[in-house]
Amino acid sequence: MTTNGIAGPVASLINEFSKLPTIGPKTAARLVFHLLNRPRGDAESLADAIIALKDRVQLCSWCFSITEEDPCAICNDPRRNGNLLCVVAEAKDIYALERTSAYNGRYHVLGGLISPMDGIGPAQLRIKELIERIGATGASELIVATNPNAEGEATALYLSRLIAPLGVLVTRLAYGLPIGGDLDYADEVTLAKAIEGRRTLG
Amino acid sequence: MTTNGIAGPVASLINEFSKLPTIGPKTAARLVFHLLNRPRGDAESLADAIIALKDRVQLCSWCFSITEEDPCAICNDPRRNGNLLCVVAEAKDIYALERTSAYNGRYHVLGGLISPMDGIGPAQLRIKELIERIGATGASELIVATNPNAEGEATALYLSRLIAPLGVLVTRLAYGLPIGGDLDYADEVTLAKAIEGRRTLG
Repeated sequence: MTTNGIAGPVASLINEFSKLPTIGPKTAARLVFHLLNRPRGDAESLADAIIALKDRVQLCSWCFSITEEDPCAICNDPRRNGNLLCVVAEAKDIYALERTSAYNGRYHVLGGLISPMDGIGPAQLRIKELIERIGATGASELIVATNPNAEGEATALYLSRLIAPLGVLVTRLAYGLPIGGDLDYADEVTLAKAIEGRRTLG
Repeated sequence: MTTNGIAGPVASLINEFSKLPTIGPKTAARLVFHLLNRPRGDAESLADAIIALKDRVQLCSWCFSITEEDPCAICNDPRRNGNLLCVVAEAKDIYALERTSAYNGRYHVLGGLISPMDGIGPAQLRIKELIERIGATGASELIVATNPNAEGEATALYLSRLIAPLGVLVTRLAYGLPIGGDLDYADEVTLAKAIEGRRTLG
């Protein structure tokens, strides 16, 4: 795309917005012209929030979710059910599950999924930490909430074979999720149904 | 939406992104988790570009487009055809037209469209400045590139009646644009066709 005749800062911000997922050049231009018409304070709030994200966010040393304080608000909340542990691939999946308000246990972020094609095996994921955590907390049920695709299934099966022998019930989110889809795009109702209908693995 | 258990800076940035047009809470969350996975420098570039937009952009005193230097790059470019003047409602429309590379004249930004329902009449637009500019530059054709809707048509008709008597050819973008649509959403080919097929008004 030519930016001939477009003010430099406008072209720069269009370019920066276009680097973000789901934002093409036309949407980026729309966002920029929206910001141009807003008070300076609105643009500052957005810029400050972006910097704060990088400055103030860290990983929870218990569940490896992203948090401002360590341990995170969920790990630190005594009202959460310590018997339930939900395994997710990425921290963003916690956000999707929390939106349903259908789950009251704690989480564990693997940091990915088993994917031999991408050279990711169990050793690259936080599975050792998961075993240690189950031992330390005495969780009685492990809900595997990985995406309903090949990597998610492989990871769920691996975890089931590894952890069920420890006397922990290993369950999987029900297939209300569309196959091949992406967990954090599912709507709240579908995700809530998937939590309610979770089934035993292995 | 609950942000229970979500780190404060994450929730804040999701909230800020959600204020932008076309971005709902789920897309906002996607953008935030994308930024979390990117190097700090990427986030800084985005934040800096947002601030630069507010700090370094001003209105061109000739055409009222947005620009870093006054006059803007288009008004200041001697290779531009000074006989052609294209009237647009908003500066963002220039960006859409420039993408086509089908136009080599200059622009004039009205700052809106005639809309009696919203209390916007000719006096609220930069029509006096347009007349002055036509007088000063001796432009021979005025292309009215307003949106193909009621306000855009009313404005085009008003300009035609006002300016054609001055001996200036007043034309309108051809209807390749979908009626009721929005100019800056049109694709480049459609817009280029609309520029080629412009027709005499009045």
